[in-house]
Amino acid sequence: MSTISPTNPLDGVEALTFDVFGTVVDWHGTGTRALQDTAERMGLNAEEDWSAFAKEWRDGYIQNTRAIAQGGQASEGALNLDVLHREILDNMFTTPRWAHLSSAFDDKIRGELVMIWHRLNGWPDSSEGLYALKKRFIITTLSNGNVRLLVDMAKYANLPWDVIFSGELLGGYKPNPKTYLGAAHHLSLPPSKVTMVAAHIHDLRSAALHGMKTVYVRRPTEDGGLQEAVKPKSEGGEVDLVMDSFVELARALGCT
Amino acid sequence: MSTISPTNPLDGVEALTFDVFGTVVDWHGTGTRALQDTAERMGLNAEEDWSAFAKEWRDGYIQNTRAIAQGGQASEGALNLDVLHREILDNMFTTPRWAHLSSAFDDKIRGELVMIWHRLNGWPDSSEGLYALKKRFIITTLSNGNVRLLVDMAKYANLPWDVIFSGELLGGYKPNPKTYLGAAHHLSLPPSKVTMVAAHIHDLRSAALHGMKTVYVRRPTEDGGLQEAVKPKSEGGEVDLVMDSFVELARALGCT
Repeated sequence: MSTISPTNPLDGVEALTFDVFGTVVDWHGTGTRALQDTAERMGLNAEEDWSAFAKEWRDGYIQNTRAIAQGGQASEGALNLDVLHREILDNMFTTPRWAHLSSAFDDKIRGELVMIWHRLNGWPDSSEGLYALKKRFIITTLSNGNVRLLVDMAKYANLPWDVIFSGELLGGYKPNPKTYLGAAHHLSLPPSKVTMVAAHIHDLRSAALHGMKTVYVRRPTEDGGLQEAVKPKSEGGEVDLVMDSFVELARALGCT
Repeated sequence: MSTISPTNPLDGVEALTFDVFGTVVDWHGTGTRALQDTAERMGLNAEEDWSAFAKEWRDGYIQNTRAIAQGGQASEGALNLDVLHREILDNMFTTPRWAHLSSAFDDKIRGELVMIWHRLNGWPDSSEGLYALKKRFIITTLSNGNVRLLVDMAKYANLPWDVIFSGELLGGYKPNPKTYLGAAHHLSLPPSKVTMVAAHIHDLRSAALHGMKTVYVRRPTEDGGLQEAVKPKSEGGEVDLVMDSFVELARALGCT
């Protein structure tokens, strides 16, 4: 539990921009559980590593959207997320690691799996914390996910964003400066009045490089176990605040 | 009161994009009243045409943002809306039409006037209608206003947008195709599954040109008295639906 120092390091901040995957929604937990449920229902080997499967699928999405953003060849359906997720999934089932599952996961099941990405759960504190923070701050996504995915996720997990900022919309993927500076620009704010909130230290380092304030939120399954090593400036660390939840952040910032 | 035909002309639509100034918020009524209130409080001539003043101020904003978007020289503060609104206001007070008011409207009063644009009222049906429509559709702005203005307005008038699309964000101002097609692209939808909602027929004609569906909402002070002339296709007209309010639209589309 961190507390805010008497000198509020976020003094003057008007907007909070949030990383989404891992910071706001538990993509890995939700994805893994949904895959496990499907496998159980099909009577498949319970020992399969669905956590690794979810990670590989998500990596495929990141790689594909990045490649497209950088001018790579997009398949005909790549602008439709469902089609893209399906292509990645189909491709995974042709690799040595997962090919043994290919025949069991027929067309219908694969279609169901694709919908997992539209229904990711927020962390238990995400929705409540965002509603509280929204009363005093402009709250936005700042994610490499695309607009449609972020909208579907917001509707499913009840995330009341004021603005959806995505890499696709701002002309680059994080850590491209266009994302951090673009968000500040469109909010008509200097970067010093915008705070990046993320569960990944590399994201916060990039935001700080461009003058933004930073809040690190400890999420157990993110950031490769760095959670305890990241410290606020008041303890000699590099970020402005370290928090364990959005509800804690809302309280620290006087939003009730 | 229009009713929807048994064959729903918006069948298959997943998202509604809204023009904002005039369609969602009553900028002219709110602006005129706020100016009148200020003038009364100052004991100024009640016969002054504050409606014309509000219109000229808004025209100045449109011209300035368009000029900036087209590569014109932006003043140092032009990316800060308040500064831009203040510059236009200061300039108006140097013109023959309004110069006689210049000394009465001192620095402090002008600062107060600028804040009018952050606190525009929605039409009486706007907030209720949008909340209902949001249950079944993705609802977004599609406005030439900039992101910050649209966000402040949404917070003030309780407009629960899923996404803020602005001309600035999409790389052009309406009727630039980048706006209509950009919105559909970022929603991962073909234009035929997106409906433009506006109180201005020219906006809907442009949207239809790019394959979008169209809903005309009659707003008494908009569109130069064209309200009664605009007809739905079912009556030989050019738009998909004609409505008198967002609440009526929500009902017609089965959102309760």
